[in-house]
Amino acid sequence: MSARVLLPWTDIEVPEGLEAAYYDGVGSPPGDLGEVEFYVLPYDRGPEPPKLIRELPSLRVVQSLSAGVETIVPLLPEGVQLANGRGLHDLSVAEHAMALIHAAQRDLPRWFAQQTRGEWVREHTRSLADSRVLLVGYGSIGQAIERQLVAAEAVVTRVASRPRPDEGVHGVGELPALLPEADIVVLVLPDTPATRGLLGAEELAALPDDALVVNVGRGTAIDTEALLAQTRTGRLRAGLDVTDPEPLPADHPLWTVPGVVITPHVAGGSASFYPRAKKLAAEQLRRYAKGEELLNLVER
Amino acid sequence: MSARVLLPWTDIEVPEGLEAAYYDGVGSPPGDLGEVEFYVLPYDRGPEPPKLIRELPSLRVVQSLSAGVETIVPLLPEGVQLANGRGLHDLSVAEHAMALIHAAQRDLPRWFAQQTRGEWVREHTRSLADSRVLLVGYGSIGQAIERQLVAAEAVVTRVASRPRPDEGVHGVGELPALLPEADIVVLVLPDTPATRGLLGAEELAALPDDALVVNVGRGTAIDTEALLAQTRTGRLRAGLDVTDPEPLPADHPLWTVPGVVITPHVAGGSASFYPRAKKLAAEQLRRYAKGEELLNLVER
Ligand SMILES: NC(=O)c1ccc[n+]([C@@H]2O[C@H](COP(=O)([O-])OP(=O)(O)OC[C@H]3O[C@@H](n4cnc5c(N)ncnc54)[C@H](OP(=O)(O)O)[C@@H]3O)[C@@H](O)[C@H]2O)c1
Ligand SMILES: NC(=O)c1ccc[n+]([C@@H]2O[C@H](COP(=O)([O-])OP(=O)(O)OC[C@H]3O[C@@H](n4cnc5c(N)ncnc54)[C@H](OP(=O)(O)O)[C@@H]3O)[C@@H](O)[C@H]2O)c1
Repeated sequence: MSARVLLPWTDIEVPEGLEAAYYDGVGSPPGDLGEVEFYVLPYDRGPEPPKLIRELPSLRVVQSLSAGVETIVPLLPEGVQLANGRGLHDLSVAEHAMALIHAAQRDLPRWFAQQTRGEWVREHTRSLADSRVLLVGYGSIGQAIERQLVAAEAVVTRVASRPRPDEGVHGVGELPALLPEADIVVLVLPDTPATRGLLGAEELAALPDDALVVNVGRGTAIDTEALLAQTRTGRLRAGLDVTDPEPLPADHPLWTVPGVVITPHVAGGSASFYPRAKKLAAEQLRRYAKGEELLNLVER
Repeated sequence: MSARVLLPWTDIEVPEGLEAAYYDGVGSPPGDLGEVEFYVLPYDRGPEPPKLIRELPSLRVVQSLSAGVETIVPLLPEGVQLANGRGLHDLSVAEHAMALIHAAQRDLPRWFAQQTRGEWVREHTRSLADSRVLLVGYGSIGQAIERQLVAAEAVVTRVASRPRPDEGVHGVGELPALLPEADIVVLVLPDTPATRGLLGAEELAALPDDALVVNVGRGTAIDTEALLAQTRTGRLRAGLDVTDPEPLPADHPLWTVPGVVITPHVAGGSASFYPRAKKLAAEQLRRYAKGEELLNLVER
């Protein structure tokens, strides 16, 4: 019997010498798993699919479709390679960041509210073009956001954990000097001890009046009480896909602040993810079949 | 006394040899207009500012900040040059087109409705990345939209009035073959006899299920009844900044169709317009002072 690949989709081709089996994380897995060498984990299906790792005696490779694999690592038997989904969500998150920015700058909540009343009342709005955007987090997603901001002719300043002057990247220590010059701040940071509360009362106070704070990374990067204080008065505006706490409780005061738009952590989950995920899986299988080194390997 | 320039702003520098006077189209014009040679028309202020053209005996140049100057031309005395505002709105309209596209693809109306109820319910959405966008109208604004679509990794097909194969531009005659392959159609067309009703019942029927129709040009390019029929059933979606009729009457059925987002012709009027308008005016004054040929001259 030939080596098997366990896949969450039926519509990708597997290289010669491998045989495909199907498990999408919703139904039950196929019966005979003894020959499975390569397991592409179903995406966003809770804890069951990763548990299956322990039931695969011939397993050689686990391909996750998420960037974060902290919960997978402890499940891996000795000698099994793990590859992650780094980059698969970049475009999805980046375009959602753009959606939040446009919504806030171009007053979409106002127009949609008028629409429900059949009201045609015009007014000039802010714009994104020529705005000064401080992009805090210049990793894989931050760089994708930057390309879209630049195409919209915004003026971007890059910030990461450490300064990289030859790439025009400022270090996070320069924030106090950079915040007063920003019309829009976009946060795309992981949740780490160093990023928690990065935008607190003092940092938010350093922003100019009417500045827009956008967060598509992790909610913990902003001090929610401080943001509430600054948005309630109308001094700052916000566009948030992530919050702290998350989910935001139904009675949380942030929901109803004018000038604050909130989406429920949906930046990463959009249609463009799937073709990209399939492309990565197909390339990994091609490499596996040829004995080439895999992409996105996670060190353990 | 030196030659004067009549400007709608107090904060732009005029070249040596010229003297600035201020008229924003809201207050009354300054008293002494005898020496005004260069008149920058206040933007979007109704019919009064253009009428002043007749009161300026030394006038040599009128600078409009609009692209369309049909109403100015008949007011011009013999020998007075007219320059228009071509390009000043491109970025503003382009980013509003992007706002409409993102709003539709990323379900913003749904999230904003949930926000009013304090509801954190997640679901995957469509995306723009990898979508096939048919861009109908590849002029000044269409090209600005294209740059932003490409940065978002959408796949763009260009259509203009005549084919230009060396620029990859299709002619409008190819629409029947192109429509079935489009996930999103963006219209950025002027109102002319040839563009009226360009997307009628037949063309809309040629689009695939769930396609999005965006219009930021003129409302007349779409047959409203046909669009209503196709959106009401949920087969197509739409994002419209312009409609036919316009304004859309309060009781028009299009307002309330799910999957249709409408903004009240606000694409052109955003903040980025003003710095760009001032930059153009400053450059024109520099040219005028040096006796160089002006930009954006309108043939009469
Ligand atoms: N909303 C959603 O649905 C969604 C979906 C996917 C991901 N995310 C979030 O987005 C985050 C970013 O993703 P990514 O793929 O772009 O990650 P990445 O490639 O690892 O980049 C992270 C960036 O953050 C910077 N950074 C880390 N700690 C910092 C600090 N203390 N101060 C300033 N900058 C700091 C890094 O700086 P250096 O360049 O100096 O290392 C890097 O530029 C993820 O960690 C995840 O939390 C959200
Ligand atoms: N929503 C707003 O607030 C707002 C603001 C400003 C402007 N607009 C509208 O946007 C329109 C476009 O502006 P623009 O500056 O991009 O104009 P432009 O530079 O003159 O470009 C017009 C484009 O439309 C194409 N076209 C003309 N007739 C056509 C036809 N019958 N079939 C297919 N394509 C046709 C032209 O084709 P060729 O390249 O072959 O000539 C050209 O590519 C304006 O006319 C105005 O109505 C709306």
